[in-house]
Amino acid sequence: MNDASPEEFIAGQTGEVGLVSWQDFVCAEPFHFENGGKIPSFTLRYETYGRLNAAGDNAILICHALSGDHHCAGIHSILDSKSGWWNNIIGPGKPVDTGKWFVVCSNCLGGCVGSTGPSSVNPETGEPYYASFPLLTIRDMVRAQKKLLDHLGVTRLYAVVGGSMGGMQALQWMIDFPDYVEKVVALATTARQSAQAIAFDAVGRSAILQDPGWNGGRYEPGKGPNVGLSVARMMAHITYLSDQSMEEKFGRSKTEEAGAGKTLFGTEFQVESYLRHQGKSFINRFDANTYLYFTKALDLFDLYTPTGKLEDTFAVVKSRVLVVGFTSDWLYPPEQNRDLVHALLRAGKKATYAQLDMKLGHDSFLVHAPELYRLVGGFLES
Amino acid sequence: MNDASPEEFIAGQTGEVGLVSWQDFVCAEPFHFENGGKIPSFTLRYETYGRLNAAGDNAILICHALSGDHHCAGIHSILDSKSGWWNNIIGPGKPVDTGKWFVVCSNCLGGCVGSTGPSSVNPETGEPYYASFPLLTIRDMVRAQKKLLDHLGVTRLYAVVGGSMGGMQALQWMIDFPDYVEKVVALATTARQSAQAIAFDAVGRSAILQDPGWNGGRYEPGKGPNVGLSVARMMAHITYLSDQSMEEKFGRSKTEEAGAGKTLFGTEFQVESYLRHQGKSFINRFDANTYLYFTKALDLFDLYTPTGKLEDTFAVVKSRVLVVGFTSDWLYPPEQNRDLVHALLRAGKKATYAQLDMKLGHDSFLVHAPELYRLVGGFLES
Repeated sequence: MNDASPEEFIAGQTGEVGLVSWQDFVCAEPFHFENGGKIPSFTLRYETYGRLNAAGDNAILICHALSGDHHCAGIHSILDSKSGWWNNIIGPGKPVDTGKWFVVCSNCLGGCVGSTGPSSVNPETGEPYYASFPLLTIRDMVRAQKKLLDHLGVTRLYAVVGGSMGGMQALQWMIDFPDYVEKVVALATTARQSAQAIAFDAVGRSAILQDPGWNGGRYEPGKGPNVGLSVARMMAHITYLSDQSMEEKFGRSKTEEAGAGKTLFGTEFQVESYLRHQGKSFINRFDANTYLYFTKALDLFDLYTPTGKLEDTFAVVKSRVLVVGFTSDWLYPPEQNRDLVHALLRAGKKATYAQLDMKLGHDSFLVHAPELYRLVGGFLES
Repeated sequence: MNDASPEEFIAGQTGEVGLVSWQDFVCAEPFHFENGGKIPSFTLRYETYGRLNAAGDNAILICHALSGDHHCAGIHSILDSKSGWWNNIIGPGKPVDTGKWFVVCSNCLGGCVGSTGPSSVNPETGEPYYASFPLLTIRDMVRAQKKLLDHLGVTRLYAVVGGSMGGMQALQWMIDFPDYVEKVVALATTARQSAQAIAFDAVGRSAILQDPGWNGGRYEPGKGPNVGLSVARMMAHITYLSDQSMEEKFGRSKTEEAGAGKTLFGTEFQVESYLRHQGKSFINRFDANTYLYFTKALDLFDLYTPTGKLEDTFAVVKSRVLVVGFTSDWLYPPEQNRDLVHALLRAGKKATYAQLDMKLGHDSFLVHAPELYRLVGGFLES
């Protein structure tokens, strides 16, 4: 492109989107939730990379997972040591090529990184929604994103791309807005959570709800159920990794603190120290109420509803779909990903399944994965 | 036997041990722990079924798992609705045949069901040990059991049988007392815990340690870190089951409370309700400090130490060994059980591995399992 934006200039030949900044979209109309309840207005915080074409049809929507946000590529400041969470895959010349496509990513409705969620102030009462925030679903997240895309002048999505909870959103997009979505890329996801996946979410919620700091959902920012949230995060983090990757990364390595195995209440093992760090850092960047609402949305997501047949749900789909499962993902195992494609094929849709032998478990879609990049890039180009 | 004991009389032809009662063994000598520290004396609460022969060599020691205790067969009162935890396998004519063998089971050292543990009163101070109880290992549990067996007049164990943490004890027995143990049956166990298994324990401990109720380990009975303990138990319980068994038992079934999916903070799913019940009932029967000490003992258990080669550790073994792994056990997967036998075979020992296709996960050894009973019964008879 001739009229390079500052970020493209900074990015130069590095293939990076470079400096980016977020914006807030305020939807001043009431938002009605799928399961009842409404809010008088809402904000979505978002970032865009690349340029929307005149027809408004070259946009790719990126949907984030449970603990993600709108900042999926680039840096906010030249002092940032870390780029956005999917910087690997988004940028000029990368699979999600910002030289060709207008890339949009928003913090989901219900979130805690700028978008309206339970910790946001209810304009009608002047105080935070807390637990009065309506029950949230994946469909609600998608409908809020649609308002943002309308506002941005996107007439049609070239693609929706997401993993895990983001994959659920991608699937919901092609069902709820079949004429609006050309391609869907859903990674490490499922048509509905298994009993075991629900169970892990339930224990995490229980840790938060039983923490006196939760206080019925009313707590000062940063002063909430930090113990419960950190425990929930530590446990969930195990489900994002694989047995093998933990074994290779940590094995039974001890901490320095461990001494001669006499550390009863300290951190004896490296894996213990790693998880405690994960729990601790999470409470500084995530809201416990959002965690409750998001995990509930995951648990309630069920594309088998209401007919009990997945292919019936997919009857409306017009998008071309790529689903990718990862062999070591035991949260949403390969079979659950494959089943999505089988149901799409039974419904006569254009869908393909790819399965990657990666060791890193559920989070494989977030790590450096050239084979995945080639798959996604090829599918988006085709 | 002609002189039937009361329990045998009650049991009659039912194959049940019938009414049983526990006893306390008090060892008045100081007990020195493997990793340092000592206590001036200790108690083990235990039960026995069947009769010790004159030679004192027909005893079978049953070792319990993390949340088990000494009450492994029979009932304490005719009003009891539940028998001991391994009543399926222990009784006249059952695989662990109380008509032939003298069966002993004690609550482990460090336990909370009558044996000396962190909640027991330290006779030297007059108040509970709390966190001053020394760091406990599987070896310590075994050495305390040896004192009990000496006291009972057991000259040699015909067998040691245990699953999970009980399996670790069985393995430790044949290493530490090779001339004393004729046969070993180790079920659903491991030579050392994987990083993932340590991780789950670490999160459970973190939930307890971060609960203000823990208070450095000093709490009134029943008033401790109940939230942390229940969360730890709920999470651990998931690891004792399998994905498949949870799916078949619960799937996505909703509770009555769930209504139309509008239950944000209640129990929406049956699996959620089940786990909350598990967590709640556990705090009424288990001590949080014992949970910390026992899970730490699990994590520290490592038969690869100090040579790094399992077969070297097994060089001293004289027992005949049966190890059984369960296909759906993802806490101590079949391969970890099989590896024990491979190492024993490399060391020239008499060992055999059996693998059972059971769906119920790690806890398969505790459920009704006729195929397992035949295996164990055959091995003990042989």
